[in-house]
Amino acid sequence: MTEERVEFRVSPRHYRHWRVTCDGPVATLTMDVDEQGGLVPGYELKLNSYDLGVDIELYDAVQRLRFEHPEVRTVVITSGKPKVFCAGANIRMLAASPHGWKVNFCKFTNETRNGIEDATASSGQTYLAAVNGTASGGGYELALACEHIMLIDDRSSAVSLPEVPLLGVLPGTGGLTRVSDKRHVRRDLADYFSTKAEGVGGKKAVQWRLVDEAVPRPRWDETVAARAAELAARSGRPQNAAGVALTPLAKTRDDDAIGYHHVEAALDRDTGKVDISVKGPPNDPPAGIAQARSAEFWPLAVTRELDDLILDLRTNEPGLGTWVFRTVGDPALVLGYDELLLASAGAGAADWFANEILHYLKRTLRRLDVTSRSLIAVIEPGSCFAGSLLELALAADRSFQLAGVFEDIDPDAEPAAITVGEINLGPLTMSNGLTRLQARFWGDEAGYEAAAKRKGEPLAAEDAAGLGLVTFAPDDIDWDDELRIATEERASFSPDALTGLEANYRFAGPETMETKIFGRLTAWQNWIFNRPNASGPDGALRRFGTGQRAVFDRKRV
Amino acid sequence: MTEERVEFRVSPRHYRHWRVTCDGPVATLTMDVDEQGGLVPGYELKLNSYDLGVDIELYDAVQRLRFEHPEVRTVVITSGKPKVFCAGANIRMLAASPHGWKVNFCKFTNETRNGIEDATASSGQTYLAAVNGTASGGGYELALACEHIMLIDDRSSAVSLPEVPLLGVLPGTGGLTRVSDKRHVRRDLADYFSTKAEGVGGKKAVQWRLVDEAVPRPRWDETVAARAAELAARSGRPQNAAGVALTPLAKTRDDDAIGYHHVEAALDRDTGKVDISVKGPPNDPPAGIAQARSAEFWPLAVTRELDDLILDLRTNEPGLGTWVFRTVGDPALVLGYDELLLASAGAGAADWFANEILHYLKRTLRRLDVTSRSLIAVIEPGSCFAGSLLELALAADRSFQLAGVFEDIDPDAEPAAITVGEINLGPLTMSNGLTRLQARFWGDEAGYEAAAKRKGEPLAAEDAAGLGLVTFAPDDIDWDDELRIATEERASFSPDALTGLEANYRFAGPETMETKIFGRLTAWQNWIFNRPNASGPDGALRRFGTGQRAVFDRKRV
Repeated sequence: MTEERVEFRVSPRHYRHWRVTCDGPVATLTMDVDEQGGLVPGYELKLNSYDLGVDIELYDAVQRLRFEHPEVRTVVITSGKPKVFCAGANIRMLAASPHGWKVNFCKFTNETRNGIEDATASSGQTYLAAVNGTASGGGYELALACEHIMLIDDRSSAVSLPEVPLLGVLPGTGGLTRVSDKRHVRRDLADYFSTKAEGVGGKKAVQWRLVDEAVPRPRWDETVAARAAELAARSGRPQNAAGVALTPLAKTRDDDAIGYHHVEAALDRDTGKVDISVKGPPNDPPAGIAQARSAEFWPLAVTRELDDLILDLRTNEPGLGTWVFRTVGDPALVLGYDELLLASAGAGAADWFANEILHYLKRTLRRLDVTSRSLIAVIEPGSCFAGSLLELALAADRSFQLAGVFEDIDPDAEPAAITVGEINLGPLTMSNGLTRLQARFWGDEAGYEAAAKRKGEPLAAEDAAGLGLVTFAPDDIDWDDELRIATEERASFSPDALTGLEANYRFAGPETMETKIFGRLTAWQNWIFNRPNASGPDGALRRFGTGQRAVFDRKRV
Repeated sequence: MTEERVEFRVSPRHYRHWRVTCDGPVATLTMDVDEQGGLVPGYELKLNSYDLGVDIELYDAVQRLRFEHPEVRTVVITSGKPKVFCAGANIRMLAASPHGWKVNFCKFTNETRNGIEDATASSGQTYLAAVNGTASGGGYELALACEHIMLIDDRSSAVSLPEVPLLGVLPGTGGLTRVSDKRHVRRDLADYFSTKAEGVGGKKAVQWRLVDEAVPRPRWDETVAARAAELAARSGRPQNAAGVALTPLAKTRDDDAIGYHHVEAALDRDTGKVDISVKGPPNDPPAGIAQARSAEFWPLAVTRELDDLILDLRTNEPGLGTWVFRTVGDPALVLGYDELLLASAGAGAADWFANEILHYLKRTLRRLDVTSRSLIAVIEPGSCFAGSLLELALAADRSFQLAGVFEDIDPDAEPAAITVGEINLGPLTMSNGLTRLQARFWGDEAGYEAAAKRKGEPLAAEDAAGLGLVTFAPDDIDWDDELRIATEERASFSPDALTGLEANYRFAGPETMETKIFGRLTAWQNWIFNRPNASGPDGALRRFGTGQRAVFDRKRV
C-alpha cells in the first residue's frame, strides 16, 4: 500500500479526525473525518468514512480515556457531520488495497471495537452510540460495539450493512456476529437487513433490535444527555482520582531494529525472523499503587511498548513470519510487580489504575493470540519468564527452555527457570474466556492442577517440560541446532498454511463472540476478500462507484 | 471436474474400495482402495488414498450399518493394504480440482466423519480405528473420527498430518479441531506434530494423546478383537432385532428435474433457483413402530430422498444458488408420524429403528445448515410445515407465509398454517447443540417460550409472523412480487458474500467441535485453498510430487 511505515503513536493534539471533549463523567468522541486526511494518497474520506489512520486515532482516544480520565464513566460516540454518522471503511481505499492490507486493517479495527466493549465491561466506561445520521457498514458496526445505540428518528437516518448487496463482501468488523450474538436480532430478519442496502430506521430498527431507541430530533440532545447520565450512574469509576498521562512513547526504529525502553526487536530479513527481547523491571516495585501512578510504571510501560511493537511489526513487516521472544531480568521482580497489581486491583481494593493495567495487558496479549506470525519463546539463563511475562511463553506456538547452562559462556549461571504466578491463574484471559494455562491444558484437568500447584516455584527445564509448561528442553549441545531448525523449518512452510494452523490450535475449547469474530467471521471474510467476485477486476469491490455492475461467477462454492 | 453427474446412491455389491464384514456384534470396514477406481480420470488412488467416490462408499457403509445391522455394536475401521492404513485425500485429485470441488469434497468427507461420531454417540455403534499401517493426513483424520485409536507399533507405522509441511494447506477434515478439542493434544505438541511430515508413532504417539494405544504386531489381532468386544459390551443396541434394508432409492433425473417418491425438485437455470417440493405422508402412521420397519416408512423414505437431493444439488448444480422449499400434504399426518417416532425412541421405549430415523433426520437437516445455498421456505395453503417438516422452514434463511388464501385459485381453501410440534423442541439439534427454534430465539427467552407454548396449534400467517416463526406474511396481492423480488435479488448478489453471510447467521450462539470444523477450520482452509501459495501454478499443492519445491509469497496475511 505504502512504502512509508505506518505509525501507531499518535496524540490528541494531532488528531485529524476525532474530537474528544470531557464534561465531568461524560466524554464525547466526535467523529469528524478530514476528507483529505487519508493515510495514503488515492482516496478521499467522504461521509465520515475511515481508513487505518482514522482508526489509529480512535484506538488512541479509547486508550487515553481509560488511563487519563478516571472520572469519565460514559463515552458518547457521535458524528460532527450533518446527516451522516459514519459510512464505514472507505471503499476506494479497500478496493485499492492488497489482500494483506485489507486483512490487517480489519484485524486492527476489530481489536479497537473489542477494546470499546472491554472498556464497558471491565472499566466502568460505558460506550453510547449517538447515531445522529446514517450509519452504514462499518459505521453501524462501530455503533454495535457500543452498549447502547440511539438512532435519530428523522425519516432519513438509518442503520445498514450494505456490504453484501453493494460490495460483495461481508461486514468485516464484527457486524454479523454482534447482530446475532450480542443484539439477538432474529436470523431471518438479520439476513434480510444485511441484504437491504438502504437499511432500516425508526421504530422498525428498534423493533428488530438493531438499535435500542429511536429519538426524534427535537428531543435528541436532551435524551442523549439523559442516557449518558444514566449509564454514568451505574459506574464504579472513582470520583476524584487524577489520571495518568500516556506520555509519548520513546522509540527508535530503522530497517534492522526497533528499540524502546524495555523492549527491543532485531529484524532479520534473511531468515524472516524477529528476535524480541523484553526486559524485566529495573528495580523493586513501589510500596503501593499510589506511588505508581505514571506511564513509567514498569507494567504499563512494558505493555505499551509491546502493544506498539506488535502493531508496527504486523503492519509494516509482513515478511517477517516468525517472532522469537526472550526475556532478561529478575523473575522475583516481575512477580513483585504482578503482586502489587493483583493486590491493588482485587475485590475490595479495586484501584482503577491497577485494573486498567491488567486489562490493557490482557488486551495486548490477545493481540498476540490473533497475530498471524509463528511465535516461539526461548527460555535461557538470565531470563524472567515469570508471572505476567510467562504469558509470552504460554502464548507461543512452541517454547524451548535450556536444560542446564551454556557451558562455554557461563558455566556458573543459574539454569533457566520459569515461574507460574498468581496472575497466570486468572485475570489475563484469552478471547475465548480461558487463561492461557487453561487453554494449554484444555481437557486435561490433572495436567492443569499439577502445573498450577507449582505456583511460585522456579521450574528448571526438565521440570517445566515434564509439567507440560514448555515444549522442549534441549541441553547446551543441542540448543543451537534445535532453535535453528525450528526457525528455518518455519520459514520454509507456506505462510498461509501456518496462519490457518495457528488460528486453529491457539483457540482450543470454547468460543465467544470475540473468537467468533476472529474465527468464523474473519476467516470467511478473508476468503471472500481473496475471491474474484469481490477483488477481481470485475468484482463488486473494484466496480463499486464506477457505475458498472459487478460480473459474478455465479457458482456457489 | 467432470461433465458427468456424481451419483451418491451406491450399494455394497458394487463397492470398489471397501469391504464390510459382520461377525455378530463386531463389523469390520476394510479400506482397500482400487487404484484404478477414481471417480474421474487423471489420478491413481495409490496407498489407500481417497477421492469423493471412495468416501461415497464409506458414507453408504456407515448408513447401512446403522439401519441394516442393529446387532452391530462396534465397527472396526482398518486397512486391507500392507503397511499403510490410509494416505488421506488423493493429492493429484485435489491439485487438479477447481476450488469449488475441493470445498464440496471436504464438506462431504467432514459430514461422513461427523456421522461416524454420531453413530458412536447416538446409536451404540462405536467406531474403533485399527491403524495397521501408516495413517497420514486424511487417513489419520479418519482415525480421529473414531472413538478409540489403536496404532500398530512396528517401528515404521506412524500417524501424521503432513498437509502444512508438504502441501501448504490444512488438514481439511476436522484434523486440527479433533486433535485439540477431542483428543486434547497440547497446543504446542499439536503444532509440532502438524509440521512434522513423517509424523509420530509408537509410545510417543500414545504419550502425546495422538492415539490411545500402540500395539506390537504379534499381539495386534487379539488386541483389536479384545477392544472391539469391550466397546461392544458397553452398547445398548438390541440383541435379536432384524435390520431394515435400505432398498435402492428410486429417482428420476434430467437437466430440469429430479424426482423421488416424496420429493421433487424443479431446476430453473435461468433464475438460478431450485423449487423443491416435499410431500407429507400419503396415509396414516402404522399402529406401532414394529409395523414400520421398512425403507418405505415415510419418515425414513423422505429423509433418504432429501439427503440424496441435497448431495446431488450441492455437487452437481453449483450454479443454482437458491433453493425454495414447499411442502404439500396434511400437517396432522406429519405430526402423527413424528409422534410415533418420538414415543418409540423415547427413554424406556428406546426402539433402535425410531432412534436411527430421528438421528438420520437430524444429520440430514444439519447437512442443509452447512449447505452454501440460500434457503427460502414458502408456506402456502395445502402445505404441511408441521413438526419435522417445519424444520425446513426453520432452517431457511427466510420464510414467506401467505396471509389468507389465493383468491383467484381457491378462495375457499384453508389458509396456510404452520404447526410447532414436540419434535421441534428437542431431538433435531443443529450442530451447535441448539434446536433450530432455540437458535432462532437465541437471547430471546420470552420469544422462545411464546412460540413453544403454541405447540400443536395451527398458526396462520399473522400469528406465525407475530410470534417470529416466519419472516414475512404477505397477502395474495403482494405474494408473487415479494417472492419474485426475494429470489431475483438473491440471484443478483455475490454468491461468495451470500455463503459467508449465511455461514455466520445460521450459527448464532454456542460453538461445538462440529461447528468449529465447519466454521473456523473450514473457512480458513477455503481461504488457503484459494491462495496462490497452495493452488497457484507454483503453489505447494500443485508442485507436490513434481520434484520441484513450491515457491511462496513469504508475506504473512
